[in-house]
Amino acid sequence: MKLKNIIESQQFDEETIFELFKKTDELRIGVKKPLDGKILATLFYEPSTRTRLSFESAMLRMGGQVISTENAKEFSSAIKGESIEDSVRVISTYSDAIVIRHFEEGALEKAASVSPVPVINGGSGSGQHPTQTLLDIYTIWKEVGKIDGITIAMVGDLKYGRTVRSLCYLLGKFKNIKIIFIAPKALSINQDIKDYLKRKDVSFEERTELDKYLPEVDVVYMTRIQKERMSEKEYEESKGLYKITEKNLQLIKKTARLLHPLPHVEEIQLSLETENKDQRVAYFRQAENGLYVRMALLSCLLD
Amino acid sequence: MKLKNIIESQQFDEETIFELFKKTDELRIGVKKPLDGKILATLFYEPSTRTRLSFESAMLRMGGQVISTENAKEFSSAIKGESIEDSVRVISTYSDAIVIRHFEEGALEKAASVSPVPVINGGSGSGQHPTQTLLDIYTIWKEVGKIDGITIAMVGDLKYGRTVRSLCYLLGKFKNIKIIFIAPKALSINQDIKDYLKRKDVSFEERTELDKYLPEVDVVYMTRIQKERMSEKEYEESKGLYKITEKNLQLIKKTARLLHPLPHVEEIQLSLETENKDQRVAYFRQAENGLYVRMALLSCLLD
Amino acid sequence: MKLKNIIESQQFDEETIFELFKKTDELRIGVKKPLDGKILATLFYEPSTRTRLSFESAMLRMGGQVISTENAKEFSSAIKGESIEDSVRVISTYSDAIVIRHFEEGALEKAASVSPVPVINGGSGSGQHPTQTLLDIYTIWKEVGKIDGITIAMVGDLKYGRTVRSLCYLLGKFKNIKIIFIAPKALSINQDIKDYLKRKDVSFEERTELDKYLPEVDVVYMTRIQKERMSEKEYEESKGLYKITEKNLQLIKKTARLLHPLPHVEEIQLSLETENKDQRVAYFRQAENGLYVRMALLSCLLD
Repeated sequence: MKLKNIIESQQFDEETIFELFKKTDELRIGVKKPLDGKILATLFYEPSTRTRLSFESAMLRMGGQVISTENAKEFSSAIKGESIEDSVRVISTYSDAIVIRHFEEGALEKAASVSPVPVINGGSGSGQHPTQTLLDIYTIWKEVGKIDGITIAMVGDLKYGRTVRSLCYLLGKFKNIKIIFIAPKALSINQDIKDYLKRKDVSFEERTELDKYLPEVDVVYMTRIQKERMSEKEYEESKGLYKITEKNLQLIKKTARLLHPLPHVEEIQLSLETENKDQRVAYFRQAENGLYVRMALLSCLLD
Repeated sequence: MKLKNIIESQQFDEETIFELFKKTDELRIGVKKPLDGKILATLFYEPSTRTRLSFESAMLRMGGQVISTENAKEFSSAIKGESIEDSVRVISTYSDAIVIRHFEEGALEKAASVSPVPVINGGSGSGQHPTQTLLDIYTIWKEVGKIDGITIAMVGDLKYGRTVRSLCYLLGKFKNIKIIFIAPKALSINQDIKDYLKRKDVSFEERTELDKYLPEVDVVYMTRIQKERMSEKEYEESKGLYKITEKNLQLIKKTARLLHPLPHVEEIQLSLETENKDQRVAYFRQAENGLYVRMALLSCLLD
Repeated sequence: MKLKNIIESQQFDEETIFELFKKTDELRIGVKKPLDGKILATLFYEPSTRTRLSFESAMLRMGGQVISTENAKEFSSAIKGESIEDSVRVISTYSDAIVIRHFEEGALEKAASVSPVPVINGGSGSGQHPTQTLLDIYTIWKEVGKIDGITIAMVGDLKYGRTVRSLCYLLGKFKNIKIIFIAPKALSINQDIKDYLKRKDVSFEERTELDKYLPEVDVVYMTRIQKERMSEKEYEESKGLYKITEKNLQLIKKTARLLHPLPHVEEIQLSLETENKDQRVAYFRQAENGLYVRMALLSCLLD
């Protein structure tokens, strides 16, 4: 399997996804430096230590090398008015692939339109974050044992949360999915996603209570109310509305899993012991899976 | 050929330059890790993603490794009042060569005076940027086929633009060069450069119109009006004065080349198609050449 | 010798210290990439180019690789409210060891409590900086030839200076040590350290004059008055009180050594020639030793 760019979740079909998961499982066991001599550039216009280090570690574990900027918005030529296209045309001559995280939707498409080397979306505006989505869905597959037929609750900031949006796009590729959106009215899922899900025959419902639906689902996908993406008023009205605690965690099926794209703040209130011992708490394993999925993606782009 | 430090354009003579170009041409074809086990430190007191990543990629492509700070002014001991000399004495114990970009002229000379390892100027104040100049002149040599005897227009901010200053110093080493400086009065080339060119028998003239001179030249070297280095008044009076458009590009000879140290803003107004297909537009190839020239320099400093 | 985490100076006993020094001496001669395939993460919530690059160089010289953030406080999920524990749980899945520098005392203990990989303290609050201390004491051992029985003057900011605190803890492991604390009243050494030294039978005295004690000591450990850790009033009253000059340097025994954790500002006023030629001036060799000591530590943690 050979990929060209990674821009949005929709670009993956079911067959590609499972090929990728097979590759991921191979790579998590051990690699023999297939990317020796290759260089990955990480160009982050919006800092994200987690995503950046995950990509960089994936590249290094595959035998490759990394060049990096953790704050391109302030430190690169962007501040002098250079277009993303020009920056990418130059950086692409120094590297074999580029991971870009950008504060504007559409920036990745612009980058890919001029780059001679593969471009990977590391998160763009409130739009997409496809590698996060691939690790989310890989985690569901590994932890729940299937993707077709699952019921999933998506909870919290569904309006600004790009991981939720990307995950919906990808779930649309599978069969018999049921999504329960749980959010305050002000942060409910956008119409474009609902239209997409209807076209894809994905069953969904919109709710405002959490506990009532916990017993029904195979996956609870919690998200953080993102203070930095909304007005102060929106934030004050929304924060703390939905929480997973020691108590309501018990409402979730033993075989179900609690996911979170991280970082989490007050929406997860579990003890260290529960986080370590309760198999339902899967979000740290989910983060680790990001490393292996990104290794597989880099392999498909560069090997 | 063995170099000690790279501080200013003047340090290179014609013979050294062509040896360096020969080395550059060898290295662009392929390398066998001659710098394995060597470490390059990049110490940027003034952020510049482009220059830094170019050096880092060059080092990695040669089999070396990199340690890096992209904002030494704020993140290093400089903020605690440490002198550049002391910083370099310490960093030199961790690395085999140091690239420094600094906001003050003279900082590189101070660094080189105490460093036991080679020091490379990655741009200092409004003074010099010798590796940019070497890639500029390498690009002229590759694209025009010669350096002796060329006519070159240098356009835009000739007062604050350090690439123009450095390029003049280097062109002084060659024969029968003619330079046409095109700038508003307020941003005209400094007297020290004119004195140098006279001493070196380089013919030059100072003009204020662009289009009239485009048909005469082998190279158009456009530069950006650098908002960050001048007063608001100077900027408002100068920006947009000189532009290369689809129209006046046609005034340039087919064999001539349009160079730019990048980033460019409104002074280049060409379509993507022209940028990709018109052979005269050479500035992205010029940026790529930076990688190979820096590989050659690192090789001469460290191998 | 196998270490688990490096959190505070007190954790090392005399036997471990000398084993470490033996390892350090081996590694400074040459290494054969024992850490090939291993990844070190450097997570700096408080920027420190010197400490970070020293660790990164140590890792690269041992054949390992590095992932890095130089400003985690602003660029990582910390800004979104993530706990240090969660950050470490995630980063530990991308790396084989983590160096953390943090502005809060206690952060390292929290990190180590959840990390499945070794955690190394790269400086925490005004508390500890154990790897600086190990390089300090290694330098004393190399330069003075012994640790037991030395007399050491610690000069300057003894209240906020974490290197002094850590060094006291480590000297408590040795025999017949005499410490002369020289500081203005407002910046004198804290009671907790004095209590510790009493328990350990370390002899110490508190003084306010410098020159008088210089002839007595084997080591002068100068420190900077740290503007950034105190009120403006404290700073104005303390800066410039203690200085080593060409003149009072002559009061120090020929076999004694002048150390400084660096960066130094006005408290060292020596000419370049003295710094290079007078064997008593040891602070740049001290900084270089940091590289070898950190190589030894990484080897003990990871090999």
